Amino acid sequence: MAKAIPSKSEDYSLWYNELVKKAELAENSPVRGCMVIKPYGFAIWEKMQRQMDDMFKETGHSNAYFPLFIPKSYLSREADHVEGFAKECAVVTHYRLKNSSDQTGVVVDPEAKLEEELVVRPTSETVIWDSYKNWIQSYRDLPLLLNQWANVVRWEMRTRLFLRTSEFLWQEGHTAHATKQEAIDETIQMLNVYADFVENYMATPVIKGLKTESEKFAGAVDTYCIEALMQDGKALQAGTSHFLGQNFAKAFDVRFATREGHEDFVWGTSWGTSTRLMGALIMVHSDDDGLILPPKLAPDQVVIVPIYKGLDQLPAISEVASKIRDSLKAKGLTVKYDDRDSQKPGWKFAQYELQGVPIRIAIGPRDLENETVEIARRDTKEKVVMPRNEAIDKIPDLLDEIQDNIYQKALNFRTENTCHVETYDEFRNKIEEGGFIYAHWDGTEETEEKIKEETKATIRCIPLNSPEESGKCMVTGKPSKQKVLFARAY
Amino acid sequence: MAKAIPSKSEDYSLWYNELVKKAELAENSPVRGCMVIKPYGFAIWEKMQRQMDDMFKETGHSNAYFPLFIPKSYLSREADHVEGFAKECAVVTHYRLKNSSDQTGVVVDPEAKLEEELVVRPTSETVIWDSYKNWIQSYRDLPLLLNQWANVVRWEMRTRLFLRTSEFLWQEGHTAHATKQEAIDETIQMLNVYADFVENYMATPVIKGLKTESEKFAGAVDTYCIEALMQDGKALQAGTSHFLGQNFAKAFDVRFATREGHEDFVWGTSWGTSTRLMGALIMVHSDDDGLILPPKLAPDQVVIVPIYKGLDQLPAISEVASKIRDSLKAKGLTVKYDDRDSQKPGWKFAQYELQGVPIRIAIGPRDLENETVEIARRDTKEKVVMPRNEAIDKIPDLLDEIQDNIYQKALNFRTENTCHVETYDEFRNKIEEGGFIYAHWDGTEETEEKIKEETKATIRCIPLNSPEESGKCMVTGKPSKQKVLFARAY
Repeated sequence: MAKAIPSKSEDYSLWYNELVKKAELAENSPVRGCMVIKPYGFAIWEKMQRQMDDMFKETGHSNAYFPLFIPKSYLSREADHVEGFAKECAVVTHYRLKNSSDQTGVVVDPEAKLEEELVVRPTSETVIWDSYKNWIQSYRDLPLLLNQWANVVRWEMRTRLFLRTSEFLWQEGHTAHATKQEAIDETIQMLNVYADFVENYMATPVIKGLKTESEKFAGAVDTYCIEALMQDGKALQAGTSHFLGQNFAKAFDVRFATREGHEDFVWGTSWGTSTRLMGALIMVHSDDDGLILPPKLAPDQVVIVPIYKGLDQLPAISEVASKIRDSLKAKGLTVKYDDRDSQKPGWKFAQYELQGVPIRIAIGPRDLENETVEIARRDTKEKVVMPRNEAIDKIPDLLDEIQDNIYQKALNFRTENTCHVETYDEFRNKIEEGGFIYAHWDGTEETEEKIKEETKATIRCIPLNSPEESGKCMVTGKPSKQKVLFARAY
Repeated sequence: MAKAIPSKSEDYSLWYNELVKKAELAENSPVRGCMVIKPYGFAIWEKMQRQMDDMFKETGHSNAYFPLFIPKSYLSREADHVEGFAKECAVVTHYRLKNSSDQTGVVVDPEAKLEEELVVRPTSETVIWDSYKNWIQSYRDLPLLLNQWANVVRWEMRTRLFLRTSEFLWQEGHTAHATKQEAIDETIQMLNVYADFVENYMATPVIKGLKTESEKFAGAVDTYCIEALMQDGKALQAGTSHFLGQNFAKAFDVRFATREGHEDFVWGTSWGTSTRLMGALIMVHSDDDGLILPPKLAPDQVVIVPIYKGLDQLPAISEVASKIRDSLKAKGLTVKYDDRDSQKPGWKFAQYELQGVPIRIAIGPRDLENETVEIARRDTKEKVVMPRNEAIDKIPDLLDEIQDNIYQKALNFRTENTCHVETYDEFRNKIEEGGFIYAHWDGTEETEEKIKEETKATIRCIPLNSPEESGKCMVTGKPSKQKVLFARAY
């Protein structure tokens, strides 16, 4: 622990990988493509989960749980869906192992072959809409507003901790509605919930928008997303919300009696965020000394480190430190007092910087005399010595200040790394520098594909809140109604 | 909804199944052996989870997450473990589907065969100890106190909602220690945490004990358990805590430098509870009208139902009902005001009885005049009319009373259905009546097996807190040091 990590300017990718490991967030498992989320990483994820879960419940959603396995044939029921999800997935073909004939291990029992193979869920629309068929008969059964927290598997050849793993943790909301408008409203509402969470808890500004046809969810009518900018100038999709129209209702024959006494197919939405958000959280704020966590998501918001020469000095320091800890806890903060004698203060300082604890308090013998403490902010590295009681009063505000500051810093970074271009030449130059680029596009898949092939940039979204601005596609010169957002992306 | 369920005296098994479905707790999914946990059932499970999670954290444990998949060869590393768990499991053999040649669906792509098959975790000792090998070098890294909330799969031929399903949700604690005694202490501590939770939150008395050799966890040195008695006289194992000795440390080569500078294998424990607890919760308390929930785990502790003839009467009732709801919420209770006009009060009464809401408040026009409410307890069916403000004051105590009452009722039932026998003839008669039976056993697997074959009863545990009492085995007449606990079991 407390080992240095590489500089992000030298090798961003290596910096990220080493940071994830050294800060004890996650590591690769022996199972290809699957990660182990370590206790510290999981504690951050739990805070994210708890907050999002509260927001889902405030907007009227309940949690439920649907099966891990999906019968292979279900995936084929929705034509686009099967194209998008059936390809790279974990397939269960047998239900038993037996001792090998040489008695050295176990082998698959060929007699225990499943009649129909099961796929480990890559997403759960199919199995959930199959249940909804039995749950929905009338408009009185609607809306149905459910969410599940679950693991999903999408077989990935090239994986990176949190950003792209074969198994990942996520939540998936699945709602059913009586009218098209209600379903669209729900789609937008959940997009806004995600944006609220990412901006106000993860301290990460996002652009809300609509995906192009080629980038949308397999089975959706429209996919909305939030896009965030990482410090290396690449975009990361931080959440998606899909208006499914009646696609899954038709695929699974989910009809209902309307208030007017007719029969109609149900309208649907689905929306999800995943442990990928952990990747965004790490990449947006952190520096060469390690993680920088937003106070609202930090497992420990404050750490107190005693500074002493001999063990005989520790009890007096501990007495004061414990009081400070208790006073801060009484204010609702999470505080850790690290009085381990097995590590030196310098080691602890480095470790808590690496792990991104927002505020560090140090107390030494001189502080005892003066009734002071030293307070260090993780985000700015500023240190100040101040009277003990003043510190206790100010720390809640300081945490808010840190939360605001890192948001503002991320927003400034994004502003500095966002440009508008008019020509494709300009675009090709700018894209090499990274960042978000707004440019006109003619709306065709061909042009989108050409740009992607030639520059590795994709249309991240058609922004929702941009002004209409007629212009000409930078590639073909055809008319365009508004600029769209381009970037290279994770 | 609000349909009658069969009587439990007529057909206990049918009563259980119908109750689970009609109270909207869970249902079978189209995937054989897997269940769908519906929102109301999941809300109860969430309360159980939250409470247990708090108890785990209070005892120093952190959550983490390990992979869903386990390489087949890992299961074989611990000899007993593979015998117990490798047999009935879901095996992933391929990682891709492709379009079928007739284009009507998807088929397994034979070219995407895994080099080594992956097993969907039936329990995670192997994959976790494989990680622990890298995490533990010295006594300073110990103890390691982790838990994970996860889904696991054990292929089951005969399944029942919550009680036995191929996929189920659970938590599994996995700890590593420097000394044998510390690991044993941890095993016992977690057994006590489980007993505390089941008795004080689920309102279900348990017997703590040690499993016999033939019933212990595959890979453990000792398995401790808590056993509860259901209303049909069958036992249900409600949680297990395993002392693993150095078995998994040896299988995965997890050694550490001791404080004294030697090298030793690490000592381990594991412990788990699952959605099976939902089955116990349902079976211990419920009656022919439906579920009876302990107030501490009820998603809604109080429901308020307005009684009115015309819609014009509703606003005045709602005004008062909302105030009562807010007053009770301010006391920390979860309260629902059901003012839906689509259902009649009688329907609502039946529905909330079916779903086990501990207290129902009814308010009609006469109550408005008199400033009274009618309060109905779900457990005793008692109804009283009392002044509104008195009701608000008394309800928190009434909830405690209900919690105590249903615990006491379950304890009385167990006392009445527990007996001591001295002869095998007596045993054979008593076992037909159901219940717990204490009897002497000679300690051999042969006798245990004979009893099981002849009576379908198993040794639930060797109770921890029973007095030593020398006697003779009821079957063989050989000497025995204490009576053990027998029952037929789920």
